[in-house]
Amino acid sequence: MNFIKTPTKGMRDMLPKDMVLREYVLKVMKEVYAKFGFELIQTPVVEHIENLTSKQGGENEKLIFKIMKRGEKLNEGDINDLDSLVDSGLRYDLTVPLARFYANNMPLLSTPFRAFQVGNVYRAERSQKGRFREFMQCDLDILGEKTNLAEIELITAVITFLSALQFKNFTIRINDRRILTKMVEYVGFKEELLDSILIALDKLDKIGVEGVTSELLTLGLEEEKVKKYLNFFAKDTSSVKDFCESFQMDESVVSNLETIMETVQKNVDATLKFDPTLVRGMGYYTGPIFEIMVEEEAFAIGGGGRYDKMIEKYTNQPTPACGFSVGFERLLLLLEERGFMCGEEQPKFAYILSDENSLDKAYEEINQKREDGCVVKVLYRSKNFKFQRETLENDGYQIVEVN
Amino acid sequence: MNFIKTPTKGMRDMLPKDMVLREYVLKVMKEVYAKFGFELIQTPVVEHIENLTSKQGGENEKLIFKIMKRGEKLNEGDINDLDSLVDSGLRYDLTVPLARFYANNMPLLSTPFRAFQVGNVYRAERSQKGRFREFMQCDLDILGEKTNLAEIELITAVITFLSALQFKNFTIRINDRRILTKMVEYVGFKEELLDSILIALDKLDKIGVEGVTSELLTLGLEEEKVKKYLNFFAKDTSSVKDFCESFQMDESVVSNLETIMETVQKNVDATLKFDPTLVRGMGYYTGPIFEIMVEEEAFAIGGGGRYDKMIEKYTNQPTPACGFSVGFERLLLLLEERGFMCGEEQPKFAYILSDENSLDKAYEEINQKREDGCVVKVLYRSKNFKFQRETLENDGYQIVEVN
Repeated sequence: MNFIKTPTKGMRDMLPKDMVLREYVLKVMKEVYAKFGFELIQTPVVEHIENLTSKQGGENEKLIFKIMKRGEKLNEGDINDLDSLVDSGLRYDLTVPLARFYANNMPLLSTPFRAFQVGNVYRAERSQKGRFREFMQCDLDILGEKTNLAEIELITAVITFLSALQFKNFTIRINDRRILTKMVEYVGFKEELLDSILIALDKLDKIGVEGVTSELLTLGLEEEKVKKYLNFFAKDTSSVKDFCESFQMDESVVSNLETIMETVQKNVDATLKFDPTLVRGMGYYTGPIFEIMVEEEAFAIGGGGRYDKMIEKYTNQPTPACGFSVGFERLLLLLEERGFMCGEEQPKFAYILSDENSLDKAYEEINQKREDGCVVKVLYRSKNFKFQRETLENDGYQIVEVN
Repeated sequence: MNFIKTPTKGMRDMLPKDMVLREYVLKVMKEVYAKFGFELIQTPVVEHIENLTSKQGGENEKLIFKIMKRGEKLNEGDINDLDSLVDSGLRYDLTVPLARFYANNMPLLSTPFRAFQVGNVYRAERSQKGRFREFMQCDLDILGEKTNLAEIELITAVITFLSALQFKNFTIRINDRRILTKMVEYVGFKEELLDSILIALDKLDKIGVEGVTSELLTLGLEEEKVKKYLNFFAKDTSSVKDFCESFQMDESVVSNLETIMETVQKNVDATLKFDPTLVRGMGYYTGPIFEIMVEEEAFAIGGGGRYDKMIEKYTNQPTPACGFSVGFERLLLLLEERGFMCGEEQPKFAYILSDENSLDKAYEEINQKREDGCVVKVLYRSKNFKFQRETLENDGYQIVEVN
């Protein structure tokens, strides 16, 4: 027969030792987020193809695992139009399903709704180290809260969670989508070039002013304006207000950002840094956007922002929203690199039976030990007892021989 | 735009209140099974189409959600042969992935390997009440244990888990696939009709002796032999030995079953009942098979058995195996019907802010409460405060107003 032993490309088998850490981190996460009043919900991994291809997912829409229609409906499809053979796909994020969920269940949910989602998502990416085609996302979202209470609570919750895993020295980079837009507008760039301009700006720390300049010129922008635009970013960023003065940003946007930064900083041990070059990928953001970094690590391990216009496409009514997602797989890698110990160890016993009458003798004691909270394995003595014993002892089991 | 609010057909959104019970039951299950030395593992929901269609899955293979190839490989497929457009599918059970997992990771796993899996599986069944296309399975399996220690530990573990959820009065119906085979053989029925004969026998409690007789006759079996066959089942089943005497069953099969029954009964509060009409669907079983019922409920909420020949198709070496699966969704329905209470309640507070300066005043106190283990929601006072207050109080929140 034609069995294949390895998982499908880009996906992973999780060994017991992998699961111990995953389960521990999930447990801590659930405990912390519950205390912030976030409510766990769940949606199917299979989503309508119409919802997945509705242009909310950006580049991810190219990476969908598509599911074929079944039965008669498959026969009705046009065989020369592959899309007509498809009715659903695997979700590539938890945001599209959240929007659908909220629209579908609104009357049953609290207002504002503090949603917490943990679930696998699927992207048919090219295989590369640390990139998986099935990976877990952990999203917090507050729907129906128009004030910065949402941003403040989300950032505080995530920092509290990461602190419970012994991370320290958090830096939150924060910006506002409206600041990004306003600068482009103020310089006089055309609005339809906004996305392309921001894609270039996003590379500032990698390719420098020169690199970004040449990318912006490639877009057909005037040299003088490009210079004026990039000059903004050379300014001191220690005060949001001072930074924003030269392009006449709305006072409300500035003070909103300042309040978020001050309140969070006052209450948890984190540095909030205004970073006008922070872009974040998704086009659906409408207000504050942010990323969290820990200690000396170069990469953000989570990020999010306000997206006030997306949910209403499903609900047909104004629904302000703000979310924060932690990169679960990256977080696990970091913890493993640091030799993080879960520190949850019950006593472990291995009862080794010499023959078929031994179980009867010891079974009451075995089950009593389990009732007392111990982990107990029962197994027959193997021919190579020395090896059996050593393996079990290495796994932390105390040996009990039953003759 | 073309958004669809409802989940895809046969799948479900899980509301916060649904998740509270699910999470509690999973937590209890994980705690209990860990004490029996079972190790949690996980496999991808996407599986190679070759593995899913290898005839291990019986009827379930007709219900596969198939995933289309992507990129160039899709173009290489023959558009007139739909199967050539598919490279994978969603798993319909956890047994096929377990076999693949074991073959793939054997050197890294303990011997015998006590596997514990929790995960969603997918079947494109016709929609009907209580049947879902995405549902959770919770499987225990012991691989590499040829003795009845496997059956005894599996049954004991499941009873211990269900007892922790306040279920009582367990009945285990138990049989052995070899007894079923031997009776068919002894009467002189042709071996290739075994499956069809067992499908008929399985309906004995629903359609009675007359019904089964007529089904067996339809298979072309001789009336006399059918009578002789069904007469077996009229006999007293209180002793496995006595029951099996008339068709000369191997003594070892009988005593094996008796040992399982006696040992389990001696150690946990359950009735084990030999039931020679118990068939269990899957053809891969090779030895003891069993089902668990609770109290007055008419349906089994779990079942399993020994399947010594399946894993070796993947590993190419003899790998005895035995498993027990609890019907998670049915279990949840039962608990809901009974008004089961999780009994896990931290104090819950809702801080109601009157204006934008209130958060700053109360935030330290709020976060202190969370650190102390309380659940705290923060929200702005709504225009209809009376309604807001009542809703929160109904959800168990104590109100704290911040002016």
